[in-house]
Amino acid sequence: MLKLSIIGTGNVAFHLARAFSAAQGVNLQFVAGRDLEKLKTFEEFSATLNLNKELEKTFYSDVILIAVSDASIAAVSQQLMESKALIVHTSGSTAIQILDQNKRCGVLYPLQSFSKEKELVYKEIPFLIEAKLQDDLGVLKLLTESLSANYFTVNSKDRAALHLAAVFSNNFTNHILTEAKQLCNDHNVSFELLKPLMLETVQKAFSIGPENSQTGPAKRKDTPTINKQLSALKSAEQKQLYTLLTQAIQNYYER
Amino acid sequence: MLKLSIIGTGNVAFHLARAFSAAQGVNLQFVAGRDLEKLKTFEEFSATLNLNKELEKTFYSDVILIAVSDASIAAVSQQLMESKALIVHTSGSTAIQILDQNKRCGVLYPLQSFSKEKELVYKEIPFLIEAKLQDDLGVLKLLTESLSANYFTVNSKDRAALHLAAVFSNNFTNHILTEAKQLCNDHNVSFELLKPLMLETVQKAFSIGPENSQTGPAKRKDTPTINKQLSALKSAEQKQLYTLLTQAIQNYYER
Repeated sequence: MLKLSIIGTGNVAFHLARAFSAAQGVNLQFVAGRDLEKLKTFEEFSATLNLNKELEKTFYSDVILIAVSDASIAAVSQQLMESKALIVHTSGSTAIQILDQNKRCGVLYPLQSFSKEKELVYKEIPFLIEAKLQDDLGVLKLLTESLSANYFTVNSKDRAALHLAAVFSNNFTNHILTEAKQLCNDHNVSFELLKPLMLETVQKAFSIGPENSQTGPAKRKDTPTINKQLSALKSAEQKQLYTLLTQAIQNYYER
Repeated sequence: MLKLSIIGTGNVAFHLARAFSAAQGVNLQFVAGRDLEKLKTFEEFSATLNLNKELEKTFYSDVILIAVSDASIAAVSQQLMESKALIVHTSGSTAIQILDQNKRCGVLYPLQSFSKEKELVYKEIPFLIEAKLQDDLGVLKLLTESLSANYFTVNSKDRAALHLAAVFSNNFTNHILTEAKQLCNDHNVSFELLKPLMLETVQKAFSIGPENSQTGPAKRKDTPTINKQLSALKSAEQKQLYTLLTQAIQNYYER
């Protein structure tokens, strides 16, 4: 039985605590955090600890997962120097070297977007793992397997690239959908009707490649439709997004 | 049995011809087109006609679907003035009035992106329908039902709004995925790993709303990460997209 502690009370900590508390072969011993109010929501998963007073109780876990903001990883890892546990952060864009002063260290980065409201299907989430020592890679594999998730051994440089591509795709697509929903609301039509189109957009991008799926007025240089659509947009921001993305598509297919 | 003809040889014509040729209660009589080479690929679905020479053979169908480019709808509909059939176009952004000179007219717009390579699941596609005469709305409902598709009665103004929102979401998301794939290729990491994230992005946008799903450095105004990511982007276009979309997200959540 792998003894695990988690440090942090954000969305990633919450989802991993919930998942590992139910996982076979893992004993979630402690969740430690500074925000005592948020920490209460973790009581159903394990014992909880005030990070400022009782952190040393986590030292005897086999693995300590640091699921805090990128900016706080270094400070938290300093406080764990005396532990013999495998110290692991969960950040996509932070190199493993930030944990170099800890004897045993690694990274376990779930390539997924976490919101408190929505349950996750772990078997569909790729976990990118990395460890200083080869043996510890085996421990990280055990952790991901306990969630029935897929793991991929990826170094810090490649993980940062995937994280950037993920931010690019997830954050920006989500904002485009936000503006599309606004457009629907402005015209009193149902945003929901776009769901099959968007699911197909993503399926197609990954089956035949997004560069083979581009359609629409920008790709076919249909200037009358572009002008008609531009003038139908009300907000300056939507016009600016429309113009830049239309231009970007045209430039791309001219290359 | 509803007798149907389709005019056009593009992707929409191809998919609708394939689907209606297999549909219960519909007899696809003819597909007519100018491009005789492309027309050959329709021979497995129905008899084919040279648009310039034999169009009048379609006149005795119950419904004639005009699935040609927006710019050609008017010219084609002129050639159908003598037919008593219900004349229907399939364009999202074209008003029904373009068919006003045809006694019976309507619109059947499938809100989906069509590529020749990929089969479609019709029961998940919303068809937006509109007709000049109430009785003809019933005919369009029959057509969509023969494909097990869902129909929504939507006027031309609202359909144009939905079409614009669809272009916005599909075309721009697809281009963002194109740039994300480029990023992955540049760093020799697998674009495929982003698929679960993107499916979750879309699912979440439609379950809890995109305005409640926004995460990432732009939303949380994490300037160090924004600068790190900007400098990791190589192409001027990616930097420009990153900057504008980051700005757009920040402006949106400041409103």
